[in-house]
Amino acid sequence: MNILEIIEKKRDKKELSKEEIEYFIEGYTHDKIADYQAAAFIMAIYLNGMTKQETTDLTIAMANSGEKLDLSSLNEVIVDKHSTGGVGDKVSLILLPLVASLGVPVAKMSGRGLGFTGGTVDKLESIPGYQTGINIHKFVENVEKVGISMISQTLNLAPADKKIYSLRDSISCVESIPLIASSIMSKKIASGAQKIVLDVTCGSGAFMQSKERAEELAKEMIEIGRLANKETVCILTNMDEPLGHAVGNSLEVIEAIQFLKGDMLEDVREVVLELGAYMVKLAGKGENIEENKARLLENIENGKGYEKFIQLVENQGGNSSYIKDTNQFTKANYIENVYSQKSGYIQSMNAKEIGKIVCDLGAGRIRKEDNIDNAVGIILNKKVSDKVEKDDLLVTIYANSKEKLEEAKKNLLEVIKIENKEIEKPKMILEIMK
Amino acid sequence: MNILEIIEKKRDKKELSKEEIEYFIEGYTHDKIADYQAAAFIMAIYLNGMTKQETTDLTIAMANSGEKLDLSSLNEVIVDKHSTGGVGDKVSLILLPLVASLGVPVAKMSGRGLGFTGGTVDKLESIPGYQTGINIHKFVENVEKVGISMISQTLNLAPADKKIYSLRDSISCVESIPLIASSIMSKKIASGAQKIVLDVTCGSGAFMQSKERAEELAKEMIEIGRLANKETVCILTNMDEPLGHAVGNSLEVIEAIQFLKGDMLEDVREVVLELGAYMVKLAGKGENIEENKARLLENIENGKGYEKFIQLVENQGGNSSYIKDTNQFTKANYIENVYSQKSGYIQSMNAKEIGKIVCDLGAGRIRKEDNIDNAVGIILNKKVSDKVEKDDLLVTIYANSKEKLEEAKKNLLEVIKIENKEIEKPKMILEIMK
Repeated sequence: MNILEIIEKKRDKKELSKEEIEYFIEGYTHDKIADYQAAAFIMAIYLNGMTKQETTDLTIAMANSGEKLDLSSLNEVIVDKHSTGGVGDKVSLILLPLVASLGVPVAKMSGRGLGFTGGTVDKLESIPGYQTGINIHKFVENVEKVGISMISQTLNLAPADKKIYSLRDSISCVESIPLIASSIMSKKIASGAQKIVLDVTCGSGAFMQSKERAEELAKEMIEIGRLANKETVCILTNMDEPLGHAVGNSLEVIEAIQFLKGDMLEDVREVVLELGAYMVKLAGKGENIEENKARLLENIENGKGYEKFIQLVENQGGNSSYIKDTNQFTKANYIENVYSQKSGYIQSMNAKEIGKIVCDLGAGRIRKEDNIDNAVGIILNKKVSDKVEKDDLLVTIYANSKEKLEEAKKNLLEVIKIENKEIEKPKMILEIMK
Repeated sequence: MNILEIIEKKRDKKELSKEEIEYFIEGYTHDKIADYQAAAFIMAIYLNGMTKQETTDLTIAMANSGEKLDLSSLNEVIVDKHSTGGVGDKVSLILLPLVASLGVPVAKMSGRGLGFTGGTVDKLESIPGYQTGINIHKFVENVEKVGISMISQTLNLAPADKKIYSLRDSISCVESIPLIASSIMSKKIASGAQKIVLDVTCGSGAFMQSKERAEELAKEMIEIGRLANKETVCILTNMDEPLGHAVGNSLEVIEAIQFLKGDMLEDVREVVLELGAYMVKLAGKGENIEENKARLLENIENGKGYEKFIQLVENQGGNSSYIKDTNQFTKANYIENVYSQKSGYIQSMNAKEIGKIVCDLGAGRIRKEDNIDNAVGIILNKKVSDKVEKDDLLVTIYANSKEKLEEAKKNLLEVIKIENKEIEKPKMILEIMK
């Protein structure tokens, strides 16, 4: 077996064996296979595809390429939740304490944001004192103690995936279903998940722009889950406009807290309940989806979800007084309202474009090493299908530079499309696949 | 314009513009584009192909990537000859002095051998004193003086091609028609050819194993020639068994000298006359192919071709007494005859396998830096279709190690297939394409 034969096989559209895929992953992880050989191989995969078995073998080989999180000491079914990325996506901040309040153990490693999408770790770090980099021993201990811990990726999980992902980015091979699916699933498997609920976002602010592509990706991940014996449910959700009203780190944390306190925005509510009900079900804590939703709502109303969030924050070293009084969060220097220049109905607000505007305000990173500004962002006052009169408040901008504020204002007015025709409120849950 | 967009375009099977191809070649030649990006791009070309226009633009961009030989001072139509490689291929040694003797100027830069195919430069260097590394000024001067000079590639011709060729070799992307065609044609264009006669070999000892693939390659090169305004004729020749009787550097030189002295082996004769007649025609020195062949034969008979070879050798510093008396060539230490173990007809002798046997004797290189042994090789006494009795002489081996001799003997007896059924003498000229 050698890399030339493996490249040749994929080039000629033949199916690779498990051993050949492992040979590639092992060799590439340890620099025994050159970047240019991996690049040619990845392009051949991009163009010739992979069978379900190949994709699963690739996933497992990547999951086994580095450290793996062992959560067996918890003696519970560990259900992981993952989103394929979006703008204004604060679902994990709400959903995870909420399911934990129903006794579903949550041991969650999240990522940081890059480009126009935010990351849960960045949002958590906007809470003063919150430690996302605790060690694994403490992490597992926290889950045992309060039923939930949310941290950053402190283990060297799936290093092969990291290397391949960064290579794909530099050779125009990002948008490949088997490569995206194996990348996501390898990290979930390496981080100890036994069952997986995936929020497969779909629309202008998502990786998958069309429902068809999102379905294809979901199908692939469910199949990997089946072959790898990790039951997987995919919820396809709408990401054409940002989720909720807030986009920006501390602004999203505040919106999440308000939600947990009972002030639930409709679109966020739909997504949280659907994902939550499936997490509870997969964890073996409730068979019936509608009943699970009712129990989740109950734990909003009785404050148990909110209390779990407080517990999580305190347990991670965070200052919970910020949660109790969100006015304590540092405010941006410039807060400006933007009003509508005309009447009509909001037709669209491209989530990716809004993500970029907020990233430019300083909330996100262009490069991995960039610092982020937790205070900046926007609060949308209107959403798609809402009726707007001239001079109505459209959006509030939180900025730390006058120049960036003006830039954001100009761009937002362009992105928020208003026309004089009624349109239907977009559906949030597009499909449930399992 | 950036490399990611260019890769993406080829990945998506869109046609690249001249500017995009030039951007890639310029960037890759000067290390501004990484090997892994080039590798992904090359694999995309391999799998998605290239249009004729793209292939031509790639050829010209590669030809322009380094130094170019300017032969305009010769004030003649310069016709270059190139073979896609073979075993026992001494055609250039015979053909070029012969056409030069008819007044066709020959300014030829040749390559060295690698793997199972030999190189003209190595063969020339087996003549004591022959300088293949003279400077360009002297090279052109030699052509002006005696009408012919044959040297090694002393200019930095088409460095982009060299880089891409070596990359293709390490990413399983060698067998691609547009990439092979552009590689060959770029070097020809960079070395100052105005018209080109190509010996497209075809069969077990050639790059192109089937006639269909050879035709495809020829078509592509003719089209590049047309678009690049370099008239190109392709002669498809048979390379299923070695050409002529001798395989090995000085042994082939001796066979070439014998040919020029009038002892013409039939298969070599057919190839030399066909290629030569077209070279004369393209050079504007004779319209009629059959007449050109007759004139070439005449210059064998009257010794003018042989004299031109002597002139060439002397002019390059070589000792022509070796040419006049080929017994002076250093002989290998072990010369052994191999006799047939059965009666029948020679069915085949795989040229590639024979090339490898001779390479293993020390006549060729496995790696570029290897030294070669000029004296070793084989002389075939029988060719495909010949009748053989048991104990007839099949082949004579020239070796400098007893061990290698035995190895070669064993392997030759396996490669030379004899069966008791008559077969037809193989046709040498398979097709002429222009």
